[in-house]
Amino acid sequence: MKFHYPNGKKYTDSKSSAKKPKIKQVSYSNRGMTLEEDINETNEYYLVHKSAVIHKKPTPVQIVDVHYPARSAAVIKEAYFKQPSTTDYNGVYKGRYIDFEAKETKNKTSFPLQNFHEHQITHMDSVHEQDGITFVLLRFSLSEEVFFLPFQPLKVYWDRMKDGGRKSIRKEEIEESGFRIPLGLHPRVDYLKIVHQLYF
Amino acid sequence: MKFHYPNGKKYTDSKSSAKKPKIKQVSYSNRGMTLEEDINETNEYYLVHKSAVIHKKPTPVQIVDVHYPARSAAVIKEAYFKQPSTTDYNGVYKGRYIDFEAKETKNKTSFPLQNFHEHQITHMDSVHEQDGITFVLLRFSLSEEVFFLPFQPLKVYWDRMKDGGRKSIRKEEIEESGFRIPLGLHPRVDYLKIVHQLYF
Repeated sequence: MKFHYPNGKKYTDSKSSAKKPKIKQVSYSNRGMTLEEDINETNEYYLVHKSAVIHKKPTPVQIVDVHYPARSAAVIKEAYFKQPSTTDYNGVYKGRYIDFEAKETKNKTSFPLQNFHEHQITHMDSVHEQDGITFVLLRFSLSEEVFFLPFQPLKVYWDRMKDGGRKSIRKEEIEESGFRIPLGLHPRVDYLKIVHQLYF
Repeated sequence: MKFHYPNGKKYTDSKSSAKKPKIKQVSYSNRGMTLEEDINETNEYYLVHKSAVIHKKPTPVQIVDVHYPARSAAVIKEAYFKQPSTTDYNGVYKGRYIDFEAKETKNKTSFPLQNFHEHQITHMDSVHEQDGITFVLLRFSLSEEVFFLPFQPLKVYWDRMKDGGRKSIRKEEIEESGFRIPLGLHPRVDYLKIVHQLYF
């Protein structure tokens, strides 16, 4: 069985898609995809093109009760979502460790910091200390704009909030301290290009 | 809430454990811990001592049905285990990407290769190509011996099996191409020491 990690969808490479041709929209608009879907497709692209190996971590679940019916697969009958204590995505690019979180907002002029949890910031801080490459991808879903914000400025805005300041990052601040990622088709959200420019 | 990622157990740091002292067995034997428990404790040790940031990935689960009872947490009522397509552990050490799998056997003289899946070998191969540090930790549970086996020799034994050869690795082969990790107390399975010697 060919099994694809990030979203459980079967991976289709260029050869097999050639067998069943379909008309591709040559539009760079997002067509209702979520940021997560865009990133998963981007990571698949990186994997196939051997540019990087980056995966989304599975959703952490606390399993309480499992049934084992005869002659079929184990069924989880009771489980709960656990709060993740790390970011969602990690992997390797040219030997270096890559670690990031992706979030979107329907706001137009600012990005709410409540999208992040304290433990995720703590985790990114540890990664940063360990010389890993860590950042967030922020999407303004109404305007379909995606920004790459390194951990360091994020930490500044986070600390400002903890010191009693505003609970969000102004869009102009993101534009200044982050990097706009133009939406593409292949890959959709080419964040690695910015990683390469910034850290290599 | 203080939340600890790898096994869902509450993390106890040295300060809080000082408040409720308990007698520690000064024995280097494994006291019935699984390799996974040993590695989780080792990773906690590395995290607290800022030597590395390495976590176990959550078990991948395909969620089919979720109930949302009033005034309580969402309950997953039907879900299935998915086959992981990567290894269980990854993280960062001095900027470098670390990726490994841990397995144990009750065999005495050889380690069965059926403990690994094709897609895990493929994943480790991609990580290796991307200049990541990838290996397996193998435990002979009866003798409590743990070995560090880099991906390259593992791949040799894997390919030998695929070419019709033996379906396991002889213990002598592991001793020759791998590295024995002495069991300690803090940390229990100090695999980072070998990572450092081999790759830095």
